[in-house]
Amino acid sequence: MSEQSKNHKARAQELVSQMTLEEKALLLSGNGSWTTHPLERLGIPSIFMTDGPHGLRKALGPNIAESVPATCFPTASALASTWNTELIKQVGAAMAQECQANDVQILLGPGNNMKRSPLGGRNFEYFSEDPTLAGQLAASYIQGVQSEGVGTCLKHFAVNNQEFERMVNSSNLDERTLREIYLPAFEIAVTQAQPWSVMCSYNKVNGVYASENHLLLEDILREEWGFEGAVVSDWGAVHDRVKGIMAGLNLEMPGSGDVNRKKIIEAAKTGLLPVQRLDEVVASLVAVVLKAAESRKTGVTFDVEQHHALARQVAGESIILLKNEDNLLPLDVGAKKKIAVIGAFAKEPRYQGAGSSQVNPTRISNAYDELLAIVGGSERIRYASGYDIEGVTTAQLLEEARQQAKDADVAIVFAGLPDSHESEGFDRSTLDMPEGHNRLIDAVSQVQPNTVVVLMNGSAITMPWLGRVKAIVEGWLTGQAGGGAIADVLTGRVNPSAKLAETFPMRLEDTPTATEFPGLNQQAHYGEGVFIGYRYYDKRNITPLFPFGFGLSYTTFAYSELTFSAPSIKDTETLTVQLKVRNTGKVAGKEIVQLYIREDRPVVSRPDKELKAFTKVALEPGEEKTVSFTLKQRDFAYYNTALHRWVVNPGRFDILVGGSSRDLPLRKHVQVETTQVTVPTLTRNSMVKEFKKHPKGQEAYTLLKNVIMGSFEEKRHVKRTPQEEYAWKKAEMSTLVFVNDMPAYKLINFSEGKFTEQMLNDILAQVQ
Amino acid sequence: MSEQSKNHKARAQELVSQMTLEEKALLLSGNGSWTTHPLERLGIPSIFMTDGPHGLRKALGPNIAESVPATCFPTASALASTWNTELIKQVGAAMAQECQANDVQILLGPGNNMKRSPLGGRNFEYFSEDPTLAGQLAASYIQGVQSEGVGTCLKHFAVNNQEFERMVNSSNLDERTLREIYLPAFEIAVTQAQPWSVMCSYNKVNGVYASENHLLLEDILREEWGFEGAVVSDWGAVHDRVKGIMAGLNLEMPGSGDVNRKKIIEAAKTGLLPVQRLDEVVASLVAVVLKAAESRKTGVTFDVEQHHALARQVAGESIILLKNEDNLLPLDVGAKKKIAVIGAFAKEPRYQGAGSSQVNPTRISNAYDELLAIVGGSERIRYASGYDIEGVTTAQLLEEARQQAKDADVAIVFAGLPDSHESEGFDRSTLDMPEGHNRLIDAVSQVQPNTVVVLMNGSAITMPWLGRVKAIVEGWLTGQAGGGAIADVLTGRVNPSAKLAETFPMRLEDTPTATEFPGLNQQAHYGEGVFIGYRYYDKRNITPLFPFGFGLSYTTFAYSELTFSAPSIKDTETLTVQLKVRNTGKVAGKEIVQLYIREDRPVVSRPDKELKAFTKVALEPGEEKTVSFTLKQRDFAYYNTALHRWVVNPGRFDILVGGSSRDLPLRKHVQVETTQVTVPTLTRNSMVKEFKKHPKGQEAYTLLKNVIMGSFEEKRHVKRTPQEEYAWKKAEMSTLVFVNDMPAYKLINFSEGKFTEQMLNDILAQVQ
Repeated sequence: MSEQSKNHKARAQELVSQMTLEEKALLLSGNGSWTTHPLERLGIPSIFMTDGPHGLRKALGPNIAESVPATCFPTASALASTWNTELIKQVGAAMAQECQANDVQILLGPGNNMKRSPLGGRNFEYFSEDPTLAGQLAASYIQGVQSEGVGTCLKHFAVNNQEFERMVNSSNLDERTLREIYLPAFEIAVTQAQPWSVMCSYNKVNGVYASENHLLLEDILREEWGFEGAVVSDWGAVHDRVKGIMAGLNLEMPGSGDVNRKKIIEAAKTGLLPVQRLDEVVASLVAVVLKAAESRKTGVTFDVEQHHALARQVAGESIILLKNEDNLLPLDVGAKKKIAVIGAFAKEPRYQGAGSSQVNPTRISNAYDELLAIVGGSERIRYASGYDIEGVTTAQLLEEARQQAKDADVAIVFAGLPDSHESEGFDRSTLDMPEGHNRLIDAVSQVQPNTVVVLMNGSAITMPWLGRVKAIVEGWLTGQAGGGAIADVLTGRVNPSAKLAETFPMRLEDTPTATEFPGLNQQAHYGEGVFIGYRYYDKRNITPLFPFGFGLSYTTFAYSELTFSAPSIKDTETLTVQLKVRNTGKVAGKEIVQLYIREDRPVVSRPDKELKAFTKVALEPGEEKTVSFTLKQRDFAYYNTALHRWVVNPGRFDILVGGSSRDLPLRKHVQVETTQVTVPTLTRNSMVKEFKKHPKGQEAYTLLKNVIMGSFEEKRHVKRTPQEEYAWKKAEMSTLVFVNDMPAYKLINFSEGKFTEQMLNDILAQVQ
Repeated sequence: MSEQSKNHKARAQELVSQMTLEEKALLLSGNGSWTTHPLERLGIPSIFMTDGPHGLRKALGPNIAESVPATCFPTASALASTWNTELIKQVGAAMAQECQANDVQILLGPGNNMKRSPLGGRNFEYFSEDPTLAGQLAASYIQGVQSEGVGTCLKHFAVNNQEFERMVNSSNLDERTLREIYLPAFEIAVTQAQPWSVMCSYNKVNGVYASENHLLLEDILREEWGFEGAVVSDWGAVHDRVKGIMAGLNLEMPGSGDVNRKKIIEAAKTGLLPVQRLDEVVASLVAVVLKAAESRKTGVTFDVEQHHALARQVAGESIILLKNEDNLLPLDVGAKKKIAVIGAFAKEPRYQGAGSSQVNPTRISNAYDELLAIVGGSERIRYASGYDIEGVTTAQLLEEARQQAKDADVAIVFAGLPDSHESEGFDRSTLDMPEGHNRLIDAVSQVQPNTVVVLMNGSAITMPWLGRVKAIVEGWLTGQAGGGAIADVLTGRVNPSAKLAETFPMRLEDTPTATEFPGLNQQAHYGEGVFIGYRYYDKRNITPLFPFGFGLSYTTFAYSELTFSAPSIKDTETLTVQLKVRNTGKVAGKEIVQLYIREDRPVVSRPDKELKAFTKVALEPGEEKTVSFTLKQRDFAYYNTALHRWVVNPGRFDILVGGSSRDLPLRKHVQVETTQVTVPTLTRNSMVKEFKKHPKGQEAYTLLKNVIMGSFEEKRHVKRTPQEEYAWKKAEMSTLVFVNDMPAYKLINFSEGKFTEQMLNDILAQVQ
């Protein structure tokens, strides 16, 4: 804990010691929708929180649409596609300046849940299907915001992966899946960036509300990860307030007036809620309030244009070039070619999602105007809307689009998901775009061979027209400056450098949760286990539409010279991995270098490979750089549910490096030894074969095995016909399997007590 | 309960009342490996049990290979492919005669577990991946055996779907999956055929040993299903004997001498085991012993040749014709054509599995000799072994095979899985046949266009050579008379009429459990839920190699005139379904008519369709028959985990009828009304939207909703710009979703107590 944090903690404890029970109870619930209660008597101020995560939504009333103007940055799906931790820090810092300018102390973000299904209604607010990528981006976001003296609220903790009936649903999953997939993104963010607060989610996890979940809020978040801040309920996530306090929930939001205050006071009086526990929970919260008050800056303003420019830069780096046949892009704007811009999104962009994250933007740019500004000469650019706000097209709209497209040298069709398809609060019911959008693309591509599709959507979609268009640009929900960014990419002012942080599947039936999503009857069974995203498509050998980590550039890159600091390491040591990447094309560009690890012979069912490190490298044409990664125990480990910790299974691991999860030209293996005990202690419940594997167990194994196999030994040399001999061998084989898999204690029963408890105890004594 | 059973029960209770504690404890454990303890003082005899399920294995020593000769019938995979309940009854009766002849009172079978993965090591001993099919076949088996006064032991109860570490593994699954997939086959067998005994399995179910599982052994098996017999432990499945008695386990097998006897006595003395409970468990067992003793017949013999002939008949009806291009089969044996018989299995057939089911056959027929006998003239039949006993081939063996095949008019390659690939005790590690078998088929098909492949295997395999051979005959593990049966099918003496009772997938990655099977670390997560077998391939739209229910014939069938007894029914009524099926070919044949049900708009994630009824119809050329099925509530219902019972979701159901799960030419829909309450009682925890759905809840819904939506109502008519209006609407939409999904009690907190507990209670009172 930092000195500053220690001071806040100590002062907070001192203040709590002076509080009445009523004052403590008052502090634990919000003062209305967005602020904490002040305690003037003790000099404790109120602090202000507002929604994020991709911009400030400081409410001006109960309606989500009424808020102060703020820069609307690209949403998390887009931010994640940059894979650029430094850039995300800058976005965080800019948002924090806007918070300071608006006297906001905590920004409610980042959203850091895993994209379990592409249908998740709130996927646009989350980073990735991969915990390492999401975790590092969330940490950067937090560092950026907090660098300006504004707190973050890492959300939604935890296993909140569907919108459907999220206040009553239980996310049911096994321990390894929880530890390996759904927690690490939070773990990385907390341990690397120490957010001021964490928001617990609405849902239950294995039957226990996240807001009352001691395992999550205390044992894991505070004890294991060392979280120092306060836990805030998602707005309305409190179920039983007193249980929540016992489990480690500090602040209820929004305020419930005196409803839960009375319950806290009563529970404290009856002793159901121990005073010491209450004091701890209040003190953690007050410490955050003190820190927030101290970090408050007055007189801060922000430059709307500068932030809009940053939003444009970030959007440009988040746009993914998915296809570019014949190098149709960048558009040749020097030549006097005619461009048909098709689709209403070109003029009225979809640039953010719906729900609590809905920012009131300072301004909005659209791609049509921005293209016009770059290309110049309105006579060269034609337009047809193609569909209405719900994505519905008509014969007339299609005909207009066809006409404009036919007469041009290139057609750019803007398509994607309307607002009504994607929002907080409900999940998508299909991976498809509205039929009108797909029909529009079909119509245009039939008359115009040079068709580019620009997509605006917050999550994966299907592309039935993939083979009929030459270029595809995934624009995501690019924020208020997306129009300019799209124009930058289309015209080559920005060389695209983004890559998918989530798999685009061919069809819904191919997705990990195809048999059941969302969970119904208030139960979501995470039956796919650790196999979400690319982990699933890899394991089942399903070809996705576009794989995780994929994205094109206007230049090309070559990888070479993968080297390790050592051919083998102990799990207490680190491994340094180096490689070279070169820009082999003609324009400057940035490459996202990805490192995956594959375990050669895992003892549990592990993904084919897992992302463990990445970096983004800017390269001039012909330039080569050396990239270096450091790997440690955790990168090789799996979560062992018998030992309840991360364990490296000793052996060979492949290190795979390249520019996409399915294009990894560099590969080389390393041996990792384990220094931990991985052979379990032998007990009466251990299977006979486990004695064989144990360093001291050879003799014990023979003794145990022969309790049953002895009868075979006695008759081994009896004369038999070849057919009898074959049947005998077959019987011996299956009996040996039977004995090997038997828990040792069962030999006592099986031998009718001839093999005794005492004999078993003697054997166990020998192998300890 | 039958009069006879009541008498046995009453006598057993009377006998138990005369027993000492020591005598009771003695009876509850076996007398050695295969018999129960007699109690001469009270005239209670010992009874003898032996392994099945596809023949008698009366042991002559501790080695599985040493047993009395008995007819080895086809294993369950093969039996199931007949879909012929009457024929399976005949097999049961024949085995029972052999039991009587050998003074055996209980045959340990049938095996009735679901084939969760084609890799399951013991799949050859189980019927199907479908509970309806498996359940009805198991019931027929039981009826057949028990008709001759021999008891059965339905096994392995329950959720025992992997061999790997089966004595320590826990099968973890959700309630609906347990109820809809893993229990119904047992339920059908118990309720329709009342087996004398049920064998509890080695594994745990959701953490509780099957041998100690009160939910399974008492609540479900006895209370719900009305099981009247005794529960016997799988050999060595007892963990804690006293817990087992409390849970409903009657008999421990094999005997544990005085090891567990002492524990029972001690527990009874300390009161840990109530005397009443002990007496119940002893009485159920004694009742079975009395019934067995009464059913014993002396002087029974059986006709070895007649049983061999029955085995041949059954095998012939279990062989599936999977492919028959150019009607290559049946072989034209009248013409003087040369036949190359290739593959060692032709002379040394694989005809049964390994483990406890290993029968010592009375004789063995092989396909080579049988073909020779039918075709006549050894100069017309050539042979090459092709591979060794482990399936390994060599350049020389391949060359010999090529030579023989090239010089013939047709080549028949025998291939499949060697013994070492498939056994009780371990699971398969691959779906592939040995490389030597696949290479042999490739080699032969390269030189001989008329290649037939005959398979001998107990579970699904891959067929990389599928497109290169003209005919494929799935022979399964056909039992001792399989050689003759294969010759019958190849030569057309038998017209194949079997169909797949399990899906053959294209590749392992396509199987439901591809990401994890078997479960490791003693935990098997049944993540695929209810989607096993065809339910999975249907839902994910994966094309299998051969679908469930598929099989060809030497004739063809046409379906027509699907009619219902009514266009709509209540769930208390039955629906009679009729249709016509005609033999449109030139030879007599049998068709398996399959009926599937699909729910149009399920409220839980249900399979695309589920088998609910089937029958096998024999038809002369040109003959047409009317087939009739009766459907009832349960056929339309799903297991509701909130109500813990089977519920019909009212609405439309499609009835699909045809000759394969993927070829269902007849379809028609019926409306099913439900007479049960399916709307849950409204409580404070009900979501606001649930009030809207409730018949009395309309007014309550408006009141509740407006606690939050009221602020929108107030400002609905404020003037706004189009852009503001759009943002407003978007905000209203997402807020309404939020409110609808909120449990009603949360409105109290959200309104800071303005909406009161009293108001909520008043509303709840109105809607009861």
